[in-house]
Amino acid sequence: MKNPLGIKDIAKMLKISVSTVSRAFRDTHDVNPETRKKVLALAKKLNFKPNKNASALASGSTKNIGVVIPFITNYYFSMVISGIQEEAYERDYNVILYVTNDHVAREQNLLENLSTSSLDGLLISISSDSSTNDHFEQLMAKGMPIVFFDRVPKDINASKVVQDDFAGALQATEYLIRQGYTRISHIAGPENLQFTQQRLNGYLQALEQHNMAIDQRLIVYSGFSQAHGATDALKLLALPDRPDAIFAANDRKAVGAIQTIKQQGLRVGQDIGVIGFTNDPIATVVEPNLSTIEEPAMEIGKRSCALLIRHIKNRDFEIQDMILPGKLIERDSTKRSS
Amino acid sequence: MKNPLGIKDIAKMLKISVSTVSRAFRDTHDVNPETRKKVLALAKKLNFKPNKNASALASGSTKNIGVVIPFITNYYFSMVISGIQEEAYERDYNVILYVTNDHVAREQNLLENLSTSSLDGLLISISSDSSTNDHFEQLMAKGMPIVFFDRVPKDINASKVVQDDFAGALQATEYLIRQGYTRISHIAGPENLQFTQQRLNGYLQALEQHNMAIDQRLIVYSGFSQAHGATDALKLLALPDRPDAIFAANDRKAVGAIQTIKQQGLRVGQDIGVIGFTNDPIATVVEPNLSTIEEPAMEIGKRSCALLIRHIKNRDFEIQDMILPGKLIERDSTKRSS
Repeated sequence: MKNPLGIKDIAKMLKISVSTVSRAFRDTHDVNPETRKKVLALAKKLNFKPNKNASALASGSTKNIGVVIPFITNYYFSMVISGIQEEAYERDYNVILYVTNDHVAREQNLLENLSTSSLDGLLISISSDSSTNDHFEQLMAKGMPIVFFDRVPKDINASKVVQDDFAGALQATEYLIRQGYTRISHIAGPENLQFTQQRLNGYLQALEQHNMAIDQRLIVYSGFSQAHGATDALKLLALPDRPDAIFAANDRKAVGAIQTIKQQGLRVGQDIGVIGFTNDPIATVVEPNLSTIEEPAMEIGKRSCALLIRHIKNRDFEIQDMILPGKLIERDSTKRSS
Repeated sequence: MKNPLGIKDIAKMLKISVSTVSRAFRDTHDVNPETRKKVLALAKKLNFKPNKNASALASGSTKNIGVVIPFITNYYFSMVISGIQEEAYERDYNVILYVTNDHVAREQNLLENLSTSSLDGLLISISSDSSTNDHFEQLMAKGMPIVFFDRVPKDINASKVVQDDFAGALQATEYLIRQGYTRISHIAGPENLQFTQQRLNGYLQALEQHNMAIDQRLIVYSGFSQAHGATDALKLLALPDRPDAIFAANDRKAVGAIQTIKQQGLRVGQDIGVIGFTNDPIATVVEPNLSTIEEPAMEIGKRSCALLIRHIKNRDFEIQDMILPGKLIERDSTKRSS
C-alpha cells in the first residue's frame, strides 16, 4: 500500500507551515517541542514517512557532504567531526567520511576516484605529507565547493577555517615567560604543515617581544604522537644548556615530554615547565595536569560545515578565511613553587 | 574532451586482469606495489580516471554503507569507525556517518528519515536509552541489511559483532582475585545495555567460582564518563566495609575511580586495586598505569563491515553472531607490593 500523503498535507491539517513540518521531522533546535510532538503524532497516525530524498532529487542536489580527514582516532579530529555532524544534521545533510590515514597517496587516490556526482561539497583537512595542491585544484576546477579546515594547504585560493595558531602560540609562550621560565624550547609538528609554521612564528614572536635569544637547538620538529614528544624531550634534555620550559605543538607531545622529564628524575613545573595545545582530555589525567591552549574544535567543525553549505547554495561565493581564537588554560605543569 | 578509455583497456595494455587494475586504483593491500605503480603511471599518461560510480550504477547498488553510532569522540568508537573505514575503503564502499549523541529520540529520527534508496546497508550501535526495536525492525522488514556491533539490542533477530564481554569480565575479576584482593566491587554501565549485563555476569561468575560472597552494595550502575567513575568510587569508599578492588566497566570510569581513591589519601594498587575495560590510551597516562581488558575495537569494525558486505551481496544470508576475545593487560593499578 503506497502512501499518498505529502508533507504539505500534514502542514495543512495542522495549520502550520510546510517548513515547520519539515523542521519538526528533522528535529532541529528551532522547532517548538509541542509542535514537533503534534507533527510526529499525526504522521504516526497516518503512517506517513517523510522522504528527505524527494526534495534533494527535485533540487538536483545530493544532500551529501564529503569529509576528508587524516584520522578519527584523535580527540581533536573526532571533536571537529562531531561539530560537522551536528551542523549537517540540523541542515539535513549526510556526512560521508573519508580517512586518509595521514598519507598523501591515499588522499590523492580518494579524491581522484571520488564520485563527484554524489557529493555537493567537500570539507578537507590535508595529510601531513601533502605537498601538491593538484588533486584539490582539479576538483575545484570542476566546480566542487571545498572548504579546508585545520590542516590547510599553503598557496591555495579556497575558503579556510582554522584556529588562531599564531596567537595561541604567542599566548602560550608569553605565559611561560610570565611564569618565570627563561630558556623556552618548542617541540613542533611536521615542518611542511602551515600550522606548524604559525605556531613556531607565535613562539618566536613572544621571545622577540621579550628580548629573549632565539636558539635553533631549542626547536625540534617531529610527528604528533606521545612517543614523538617523549623523543623530542629526550633530545632537549641532552643539550649541554637544557631548556627550563617546553611549549609543545599539541597535548599528546606534551604528555610524552612530561613522561620523559619525570623518567629523568626532573620535576615538571618546578624544573621544567610544560604547556601543550588542544585541551585533550588526557591533559587532566596526566600528572601534573597539563596547562594548554584550548582549541575550538567543535566550533571549527560547525563553522566549516556552515560555510560549505553557504558555498553549495551560492556557487558564486566569495572565498573566506575564518580564524577562531583559542583559550589559555592554566594548570599545574607550568607552576614553579618558590 | 571525453575519456573513451575503460578499465578493460588499461588491463589489456598491461596484460593483467581487470580485477587487478581495479584493485590497483583502490590501493588495496593485496596488489603488488610495482603493478600498482605501472597501472597508475599508465592511467596518468592516458589521463584516465576510473569511475567507481559506473559499476555501482550498473549493479543497482549505491556503494554506500550507513554507520549509526552514539559518539565518535571516544577512543573505542573512533577505533571501530577506523576499522569500518578501512574495510569499506578496500571494498570500495563509502561510509556515511550518523551520530545519535546517545539519545534514542535522535536515533529513531535518523532511522525513520533515512533515505534507504541511497544506502546498501547499515551498521548500528544503539544508544544507551534505546528500549524498543521497532525502528530497527521496520528497516529490516523493508529488506535493509543490518549488522549490529558492540551495543546490540536484546531480542532481535539480526547479525551481531561484539567483544566477549562475559569472558573479559570473568578474566578481569579472576585476575583481581589472583592478585590477592578479597572484597571486589564492580562499577557498571547503564543497566539496560546488554553488555552491561554480560560484564556483570562475568564478574558474578568469577566470584561464585571462587566461593566469594556477592554483596549487592558493591555493584554500582551509572554512565560511562570519568566523572561517573569518580562518583561511583566515592559511593563505594563511603561503605562501612569498603571494597579493596574495583572492576570498572570501562577505562574512563576506572580513571575517575583512581582519581577519587587518590584524593581520599588511599593508595591505588596497594589499598585498592583497579582494573578497567577497553585499553584506552589514557590507561598509560594515568598514574599508576591502569590494568585493563583490551577490546578488539579495530577488528570489530572490520569484521562487522565485512559481514555487512556479505549480507549486501547475498540477501538470503544467515544471521551470524560473532564474538571476539579481549586480552588482559597487566599494569601497576592492580599491584600489591607486600
